Amino acid sequence: MRHKIGVATLSLGLAMLLAGCAKTSSNAEDKASEIASTANTPALAYALKVKESSQKSALSYDIVKSLTVEVGPRIPGSQGDKRAVAWAEAKLNDLGFDKVYKEPVRVRNWERGFADAKVVSPFPQELIISALGGSIATPESGIEAKVVMFDSLESLIAADKATVQGNIVFLNTKMQRDKAGRFYGKVVPNRVSGAVEAAKQGAQAVIIRSVGTDNSRFAHTGVMRYDDTVEKIPAGAISTADADNLAAMFASQQSSAEDIILNINMQAKDAGWQTSYNVIGEFTGSEKPDEVILISAHLDSWDEGTGALDDGAGVGIVTAAAKLVKDAVGQPKRTIRVILYAAEEIGLVGAYQYVRSNRDTLKNIIFAAESDFGAGQIYQLDTRFAEDVRNNPADLYAALQSMGVELGNNTTSGGPDVSMLPNYGVPVIALKQDGTYYFDYHHTPNDTLDKIKPEDIQQNQTVWAMITAYMAMSDFDPRPAPKG
Amino acid sequence: MRHKIGVATLSLGLAMLLAGCAKTSSNAEDKASEIASTANTPALAYALKVKESSQKSALSYDIVKSLTVEVGPRIPGSQGDKRAVAWAEAKLNDLGFDKVYKEPVRVRNWERGFADAKVVSPFPQELIISALGGSIATPESGIEAKVVMFDSLESLIAADKATVQGNIVFLNTKMQRDKAGRFYGKVVPNRVSGAVEAAKQGAQAVIIRSVGTDNSRFAHTGVMRYDDTVEKIPAGAISTADADNLAAMFASQQSSAEDIILNINMQAKDAGWQTSYNVIGEFTGSEKPDEVILISAHLDSWDEGTGALDDGAGVGIVTAAAKLVKDAVGQPKRTIRVILYAAEEIGLVGAYQYVRSNRDTLKNIIFAAESDFGAGQIYQLDTRFAEDVRNNPADLYAALQSMGVELGNNTTSGGPDVSMLPNYGVPVIALKQDGTYYFDYHHTPNDTLDKIKPEDIQQNQTVWAMITAYMAMSDFDPRPAPKG
Repeated sequence: MRHKIGVATLSLGLAMLLAGCAKTSSNAEDKASEIASTANTPALAYALKVKESSQKSALSYDIVKSLTVEVGPRIPGSQGDKRAVAWAEAKLNDLGFDKVYKEPVRVRNWERGFADAKVVSPFPQELIISALGGSIATPESGIEAKVVMFDSLESLIAADKATVQGNIVFLNTKMQRDKAGRFYGKVVPNRVSGAVEAAKQGAQAVIIRSVGTDNSRFAHTGVMRYDDTVEKIPAGAISTADADNLAAMFASQQSSAEDIILNINMQAKDAGWQTSYNVIGEFTGSEKPDEVILISAHLDSWDEGTGALDDGAGVGIVTAAAKLVKDAVGQPKRTIRVILYAAEEIGLVGAYQYVRSNRDTLKNIIFAAESDFGAGQIYQLDTRFAEDVRNNPADLYAALQSMGVELGNNTTSGGPDVSMLPNYGVPVIALKQDGTYYFDYHHTPNDTLDKIKPEDIQQNQTVWAMITAYMAMSDFDPRPAPKG
Repeated sequence: MRHKIGVATLSLGLAMLLAGCAKTSSNAEDKASEIASTANTPALAYALKVKESSQKSALSYDIVKSLTVEVGPRIPGSQGDKRAVAWAEAKLNDLGFDKVYKEPVRVRNWERGFADAKVVSPFPQELIISALGGSIATPESGIEAKVVMFDSLESLIAADKATVQGNIVFLNTKMQRDKAGRFYGKVVPNRVSGAVEAAKQGAQAVIIRSVGTDNSRFAHTGVMRYDDTVEKIPAGAISTADADNLAAMFASQQSSAEDIILNINMQAKDAGWQTSYNVIGEFTGSEKPDEVILISAHLDSWDEGTGALDDGAGVGIVTAAAKLVKDAVGQPKRTIRVILYAAEEIGLVGAYQYVRSNRDTLKNIIFAAESDFGAGQIYQLDTRFAEDVRNNPADLYAALQSMGVELGNNTTSGGPDVSMLPNYGVPVIALKQDGTYYFDYHHTPNDTLDKIKPEDIQQNQTVWAMITAYMAMSDFDPRPAPKG
């Protein structure tokens, strides 16, 4: 995910459920008799059936394993991205989706190239640096200048320009660990806006302390932005361990007049426009093919890891959920559409293209959701459903509690790639995952398959499959999404 | 540390202590009256006094911080190594050691240079690789060949040569996590001897799964050896995550005839002979200056991390221990000698040179010890003392129990750099540390200061200071070491 700026919300919880405002689905089904007698409604019975089969299935793990092993890194527009698109089409076909198709998305292909940073004096040492996504290159010979350190973007903005002019800015803001990842939103402006703010103050370049919760020497990349009215300067992230080391050099020098001189050399380039694709697979609805359950993830990743957590896990989870529903309950009444979006990391490019290309049919989407926060277990369901019916699927909400998932707020914007849909009245949900360790690996070379626990991704798969089954097999209709 | 091949041993423990075979030191001291009345002997009283002051001191942490921040990586013979020698002399002088001197050590300077590995087909991906220390380079254009995977060195040795000839060998042996680090010895032959065994089977190159317990994309370097009678081939380590990925590619290809083709390019070079130094600091004994308490660590490190755990921690621990003893108890009766050895990582080069240069005075060493296993807490004291007096310092052993340190065996060879001394009759001890996480970081870029917990290194410092004080202020003499 790119910049999910999560806000933890209180669960509305059991009290509302117990208030008993459920209006059960009335669609009786032939298959209902086969299904667990504990089900309150036919739709719930389908959810419970797929729950049972999902808990025996490793499909989501197998899919992300296939993607990371057989494709690996897939930055938008790259050869890896093209292989990922081909992989996705083949995978959806192999799994027996009724329709598999792709929609073109024009993307800028940014190439990282060589990156190197070193303290020249007084304590010569290499630092581990990663160019931020979209950064321009340094001159071929690099940039060598005095480092000025700030503890926040605000301090930089407030600084006397004379202290910054001609120097390299070092933004050293620590990120706290948190289950909901709430501190990402507080720190990520360093990454997104650091270059613009440093350039306004006359800096030659900016380096940031990685936006991450690990203590390691992996630098965290991620997208940054320029402002056409401000000079473009190169931007990179150093690892948290290197940030600590560099900060300690300042402390060692406090009694000295000697400057800390840094040399940065990054040879990133914009490799121009390429065509990528949103890859889409559907199980066509048997009764209401025009009513669409939209579950999604993004296919692209950053280029240094294999994109296991971000967002191979999501690809595995939503693809597996759809397939497991089909296998467990047969052809769904409504259409289940899996979208694997292009180019999320560089600005939800595929998602915006999807909206432009499908504007007329957005009204058919019953709800949309994206899995894009790794593979930690889901603990909360947030919704953006029409208020008057929001609590109708009380039986589903109660069933999710058995999976450790509490009902949360009704004000979510959903995952990144569906976050623009409520503006069009499309309901969304967000299945909040335990992100305690997510930002240890996010956007680093260390985002690899071994970071996914099979039991955790299976819990995700099961929750998604239950909700998908319920919504695809019921008449519950949460449209339109309330305005934000 | 290079290759401590530990064997856990049963503690002889409390029973022996309680058997009451203690022969207490008889040296009465003026200062004794000042010291805690719980002390059984004057020597113990000194140990308890320094325990108290050490528990208020962060000196060992401050020393390793200074070394990692102000010097950083220091592979033998490099500019970093030269800076480390200057740093060590200045640090020992600043701390007020009576004598600070250095002894030259000739070392080969190996330079890592560029290293790159990628799967060419069927699943193009970059792999994170680190050249093994001492490896020759590949040709400039790299080596591109089929990969053949073996789960152990034994399997490689037993293989049909026709299956290996002309290929790249991949040794994929997993290392288990263990408090005592016992599995290092089982896996490290892959690193040390992999190139020789692969070359005997006709391979072009060898890559090993990193000898490490992490799941990350840091490759673990470390020394490897050639055999003059066998062709030299390049040798590298890939990270454990990359090893898993590569192994998974084999699994994905099981039903296919397609080979996995790897391209390796490593441009390491032997940069010739350089002079490094064992740096030595002493507090001269007031009564028996010729009786020497030798405590040590190694100053060199691998070149990718800042050598915080290996062996900045040891440098901090033994240097601080000596200084704290001097400050707490005044001039020691026996000489306390701190040796910061050169070039441990490439074969205990400084330690062997020390023996050659000081052969005639080795007999004066009361005991020798090295701290070289990171900063995990000490849980066991192993010794190599004359059997008939081994249990005399029962009061010290009991006091160490209060620090969580049990008495272990009497057959240790001590740390790497003192392991040759028992052959000369020099007693040694080994203070066994909790190494549960040591091999997550060992020989990687991720061996940095943030991996050291201040409270853990302080426990080490205190235990070393207690033993050093006791031995420097008593007449207890464990010479000669029993033969191995």
